[in-house]
Amino acid sequence: MTAPDASTILKPGATLGILGGGQLGRMLALAAAPLGLKVHVLCPDPDSPAFDVAAGFTVAAYDDTTALDTFAAAVDVVTYEFENVPGPTAAHLAARVPVRPGPNALAVSQDRLAEKTFLRENGIPVADFRAVDSQDEVLPALEALGGQGVLKTRRFGYDGKGQMMLRQSADATGAFQALGSAPAIMEAFVPFEREVSVIVARGLDGTLRAYDVAENHHEHHILKTSTVPATLTTDTAAEARQLAERIAEKLDYIGVLGVEMFVLPGTGDEAERLVVNEIAPRVHNSGHWTQDACQVSQFEQHVRAVAGWPLGSAERHADVVMENLIGAEVESWPALVAAPDACLHLYGKAESRPGRKMGHVNRLRPLRA
Amino acid sequence: MTAPDASTILKPGATLGILGGGQLGRMLALAAAPLGLKVHVLCPDPDSPAFDVAAGFTVAAYDDTTALDTFAAAVDVVTYEFENVPGPTAAHLAARVPVRPGPNALAVSQDRLAEKTFLRENGIPVADFRAVDSQDEVLPALEALGGQGVLKTRRFGYDGKGQMMLRQSADATGAFQALGSAPAIMEAFVPFEREVSVIVARGLDGTLRAYDVAENHHEHHILKTSTVPATLTTDTAAEARQLAERIAEKLDYIGVLGVEMFVLPGTGDEAERLVVNEIAPRVHNSGHWTQDACQVSQFEQHVRAVAGWPLGSAERHADVVMENLIGAEVESWPALVAAPDACLHLYGKAESRPGRKMGHVNRLRPLRA
Repeated sequence: MTAPDASTILKPGATLGILGGGQLGRMLALAAAPLGLKVHVLCPDPDSPAFDVAAGFTVAAYDDTTALDTFAAAVDVVTYEFENVPGPTAAHLAARVPVRPGPNALAVSQDRLAEKTFLRENGIPVADFRAVDSQDEVLPALEALGGQGVLKTRRFGYDGKGQMMLRQSADATGAFQALGSAPAIMEAFVPFEREVSVIVARGLDGTLRAYDVAENHHEHHILKTSTVPATLTTDTAAEARQLAERIAEKLDYIGVLGVEMFVLPGTGDEAERLVVNEIAPRVHNSGHWTQDACQVSQFEQHVRAVAGWPLGSAERHADVVMENLIGAEVESWPALVAAPDACLHLYGKAESRPGRKMGHVNRLRPLRA
Repeated sequence: MTAPDASTILKPGATLGILGGGQLGRMLALAAAPLGLKVHVLCPDPDSPAFDVAAGFTVAAYDDTTALDTFAAAVDVVTYEFENVPGPTAAHLAARVPVRPGPNALAVSQDRLAEKTFLRENGIPVADFRAVDSQDEVLPALEALGGQGVLKTRRFGYDGKGQMMLRQSADATGAFQALGSAPAIMEAFVPFEREVSVIVARGLDGTLRAYDVAENHHEHHILKTSTVPATLTTDTAAEARQLAERIAEKLDYIGVLGVEMFVLPGTGDEAERLVVNEIAPRVHNSGHWTQDACQVSQFEQHVRAVAGWPLGSAERHADVVMENLIGAEVESWPALVAAPDACLHLYGKAESRPGRKMGHVNRLRPLRA
């Protein structure tokens, strides 16, 4: 077994391996095809939406090393659609074929404590935080953070799962057990005005391309809309993109990275300011608007990066609102497909369930001057 | 066997059958996926580029009725990427499942004599023409058309194949045999200044949407570039779109139709005028620019039409030049992928051969005011 060549550049006809067969893998596959790349998807779910648009696929568990070996032999580069790729899976593959983004980005983003520590050490503004490894450490952490905080498991949280808000000392009681007695982090409560995100790409050659800032609204802890441009001063918007670029650079990142930030309102003479909440080492739901409002979408950009190709333009040619279609909302497709300003993206999932992301729609508006 | 319902409307999750697995079928499949439709491709070539992005495919000859039956049972609507679908294949399928565009459009466009007759009968300007069924009829036809003409086989001509220019009486000698002694048509020579084309879509509900006119340049009888907007007066551009719309309407057409036209220069007080050269009952190479310059591409538009869905916007948000990558030209991909204004579309063909269409690139420019 030879170590993979970190400088590998794919040629048209090469095969991109994708771990994960959900809508993100599907849209990556759809973006890879016009670049002349084949796609092979590995996912344990036999009904994976990405399989329908892939040249090849493997149904296997992520810890099935025999399947991983076959997969590694069938592809030229591996990427992934979700940040919870098990570390041993990434390591097993990385010994055989380039894995991009690299295992370091996974390690940092899988663990909220590692992530926050990494960000703070690199001068990125984050909410104050404390490690919480037992019930005994909950109350001291809460007090250290001013009496309010959010307790989160360090691993496997998403869409508001694995976290709880503590508003007073009494809330500390039993909080650690309520989250499953797993290693946790307490973050200071951030009185934010709005949430924004930046999708940034970094190429194999170190080139950075940040897309415009999106403003995100959630319903029931699930992203509902992303609006571009976001309501921000020009300075704050520029800072948001710079923060995202700095994170990508400090991670020595290859691919597309999603960076979620909170906007704190300005007070008196103080300008509004940004706090980074979370990073996702993959294409991101809040970047789906790029599919119809930009020449090069986040999906094509990610494929270009992990293929070792030059990044494309991240310029935007329209204002846009992306709206997720969650659960039964997808049944509104006849109205959406008839709306002249709506670009429909359905994920081909057989079954609609409450809270399940079934598709999204990008509504375009002329660029504001 | 029940006759298929002509008013069938697909729902997301339904399967679109495509006859033909080349680049057009591939790009149709890529456009169908975001609409939540699955694709099943039937093609005799086991190396079909469309297979790589289809949920299912069948390798079979077009006259393999057993395979056609299985295919018909697996899909909800059938469309095709090429106009030479054998009549019996279309009829066999049409008895089982809606075929869109309908067999009538195939019959008309497969036979240059039927096509020209249809166009003339519907008030569409065409070059004068004569049927030529034997060598004896070549010279009289040439003389009737003013001493110059183009002799073409009625069927299976493409990219300049199956035709010859006759410039003088002597050229008539042996011309019929030289084209294979197949039923032919002689068309008057048209001293055109340029060639343009219009991509028009017609929905199941009769709605028409014509895209802007493209100006086409050929090299070695193969399309090389399509430029939008075309060099035309506003009146002529409007007329070109109206002609395309009238043709789609008169054919009772469902889907996207390509209409090639010649532009004859104005002389003295006479304005420039248009002559329709050829129609193609399918997505068309001269419409590839719509992928990056329009909200809804010709591929999505065709899928919407054959699915029975409302048509989308055909508005254009950029000026654009589409350039085909033919044969070894595809080797310039590293430069193309690095060009900031270029949107690359490669077809995933394993082998590049002279004259083979390997991909295309759309170069965007800001809309001229």
